Amino acid sequence: MHPSLPATPDYDAWPVDHQLVDVSHDARVITLHWDDGRTSRYHSIWLRENAADDTTINPATRERILDLSSLVAWPEIASAYLDKAGALAVTMLPEGIELRFHPGWLRYHDYDNTEDDRQPLVPVTTWRGGSDQSPVTLDASGLLDSAADSIDEAAVLEPALQAILGRGLVRLRNLPTEPGTLARIAERIGPIRSTNFGTLFDVRAKPDPDSNAYTSIALPPHVDLPTREYHPGLQFLHCLENSVSGGQAVMMDGFAVAEALREEDPVAFATLTRVQWRFANTSRNSDYVWHSPMIVLDDRGQLDEVRIADFLRGPLMTHFNEVDEAYRALMALQERLRQPRFALRFSYAPGDLVIFDNRRLLHARDAFAGDTGHRWLQGCYLERDEIRSRFRILQRRQRERQVADSSTTTSQVTTAPAAP
Amino acid sequence: MHPSLPATPDYDAWPVDHQLVDVSHDARVITLHWDDGRTSRYHSIWLRENAADDTTINPATRERILDLSSLVAWPEIASAYLDKAGALAVTMLPEGIELRFHPGWLRYHDYDNTEDDRQPLVPVTTWRGGSDQSPVTLDASGLLDSAADSIDEAAVLEPALQAILGRGLVRLRNLPTEPGTLARIAERIGPIRSTNFGTLFDVRAKPDPDSNAYTSIALPPHVDLPTREYHPGLQFLHCLENSVSGGQAVMMDGFAVAEALREEDPVAFATLTRVQWRFANTSRNSDYVWHSPMIVLDDRGQLDEVRIADFLRGPLMTHFNEVDEAYRALMALQERLRQPRFALRFSYAPGDLVIFDNRRLLHARDAFAGDTGHRWLQGCYLERDEIRSRFRILQRRQRERQVADSSTTTSQVTTAPAAP
Repeated sequence: MHPSLPATPDYDAWPVDHQLVDVSHDARVITLHWDDGRTSRYHSIWLRENAADDTTINPATRERILDLSSLVAWPEIASAYLDKAGALAVTMLPEGIELRFHPGWLRYHDYDNTEDDRQPLVPVTTWRGGSDQSPVTLDASGLLDSAADSIDEAAVLEPALQAILGRGLVRLRNLPTEPGTLARIAERIGPIRSTNFGTLFDVRAKPDPDSNAYTSIALPPHVDLPTREYHPGLQFLHCLENSVSGGQAVMMDGFAVAEALREEDPVAFATLTRVQWRFANTSRNSDYVWHSPMIVLDDRGQLDEVRIADFLRGPLMTHFNEVDEAYRALMALQERLRQPRFALRFSYAPGDLVIFDNRRLLHARDAFAGDTGHRWLQGCYLERDEIRSRFRILQRRQRERQVADSSTTTSQVTTAPAAP
Repeated sequence: MHPSLPATPDYDAWPVDHQLVDVSHDARVITLHWDDGRTSRYHSIWLRENAADDTTINPATRERILDLSSLVAWPEIASAYLDKAGALAVTMLPEGIELRFHPGWLRYHDYDNTEDDRQPLVPVTTWRGGSDQSPVTLDASGLLDSAADSIDEAAVLEPALQAILGRGLVRLRNLPTEPGTLARIAERIGPIRSTNFGTLFDVRAKPDPDSNAYTSIALPPHVDLPTREYHPGLQFLHCLENSVSGGQAVMMDGFAVAEALREEDPVAFATLTRVQWRFANTSRNSDYVWHSPMIVLDDRGQLDEVRIADFLRGPLMTHFNEVDEAYRALMALQERLRQPRFALRFSYAPGDLVIFDNRRLLHARDAFAGDTGHRWLQGCYLERDEIRSRFRILQRRQRERQVADSSTTTSQVTTAPAAP
């Protein structure tokens, strides 16, 4: 049999787009040279921890079992070479163990040439509204008839997830309108996050409402559940009926609003990234409170989330001298939330499903006349983790096909002929 | 009828422990004097936004409907006095509206004298282990027979939630051992967070496991699901059967470990609060990835969460020059995770339910011999929000009783006799 590439410490497929051509090392660092001229360095301890052999990874689960601190000495490289399959082979001390590494996996995990591992799966594109704009819209009529993990399913899911990851919003059309359909659609992506409003919640005017959402009044632009330590990453709203006058949906990109504020009123922007507002959602039987700035930046200064919902704010409890400026900044934001330049405005048709990033987008609705007809949306929440996992699996399936193709067509080119 | 106190903008009960004795103001600030000598200032705009009248709050939901930026001018105070019920009455411009404020509510929301509104509901007490230690343990035999929201339920829930909030851990004993009981118990607190492992998950050795948890091998101290943007705040583990040799539970306070590291190896501590580790949980059909430091501090420098799970880390992808120090710091942590000074060690008895803070505590287990008997735990996740909401409701019920008592016994003392 011809030499084969070693296992990787995961379930993924790693196409070999570049071959290793040379290796050198000292005790603590391996240096690899690739056929396109790239040079990549890897630390001995990094290689030791990321090996895929049975002393490092539980083969049944592909989860790590090695505890580095249980080694009697810091891992060092005794020797290294490229084997006949094109893999890196390393003999490592203190164990004297030979470990092999897959070149496609090594190339992908080339941290020596990676600027930032936290790049989003899809580049984030902020957007503004206006009357000529509409959300990315896809025909999803065949989605529920497609088999799970099929090419037909991917044909709808892949562009849908891409739009959500990049623009924070997608609209699927022509889905069934039976109540509960939403759970079947969500299952195509991941588990639903239940809340005190249920697993699926019904948005329509109700007697004895426990939220302004369940009335017919207008709702200002907001995120849902900012009263939680971590408000849901995704919201799904599925239209079952809509025959009322009014009640148009309004969506806006909270990141675009924040960027505009940063440019036009940088002091207000800074204030809203600093002041801890109290978000509160109290009802007769629940009492959720969380404190957060309205605009949250990550450690790189990038926009991470917005937390805006006037009707879910409790009393501001901050330093006395901060209060007037906090409210000035709040009003600078509120004014922008009313400006048409940010708003995407559309009507729900029965069978529409709008999916949006609830930690980035703001949604609103106009008042509607409850006596002119019926308006019934079913909603649910998921986490952004689910959509990223699903998107990575779609990408993995593509790589699996790529690896399968290349092993049938190019194995003679890149590996030596099988010895008898 | 005698003068009554005004409504508050929420569903809560506000005992009046102190009376207002004087009020003064300028256009932008009210100054209140209390019967215990305290002085509290409130801004006009703050009062305007937190009024409880129908122009500010939707009476059906008690959620805010006022948009401050829609006022034609900054709210200013035209006049203010204390009314016969002991409430603050303010006439406010530009609307010329008279608003009344409840003194108990004002006293509670005295931001002028509040150092930090983000005090935990229960003070956080870090703890270490040792063979003489055991978790706070409560007899919960009557819990499922108690009525929802009853005093009997509160008698178990209140100390249980207190222990979880303060120490991150509680053990309830003498619960039923029917599979699925856990969902009924969780419902007493709040909705379950479903994951790709299900709503309730079964922890026992399984064929074709998708996690090391589902084998009989030892698990090092870890949090669950660090591969999510926000790993679950609470984990529940309910023992249905346990007749194996080994498999002891080990719990440790990740905050105590982090504090020890901060004292004993401050460089390693700083490294672990800075380096973005890649956490990864890949299986055949899911692929969760998240980057985070292992120790996360909040904006005040306080411990916010730990994210430690060697078997759920993917390849570290950080700056080349940071790698050796990152691993040195990791091993400094790993060594401490093996030290008996942190570990609380106990065996599960059928009917035990252990609830712990999954973003603070680390749990582990010894290997067990799967052929000596059965070991079956059912688990689920909830968010910390749920436990805080539930605890606030228990506190609110106490205040409601306090207000009801005082209105029957002391109304003659604090208010004038009813006029005919």
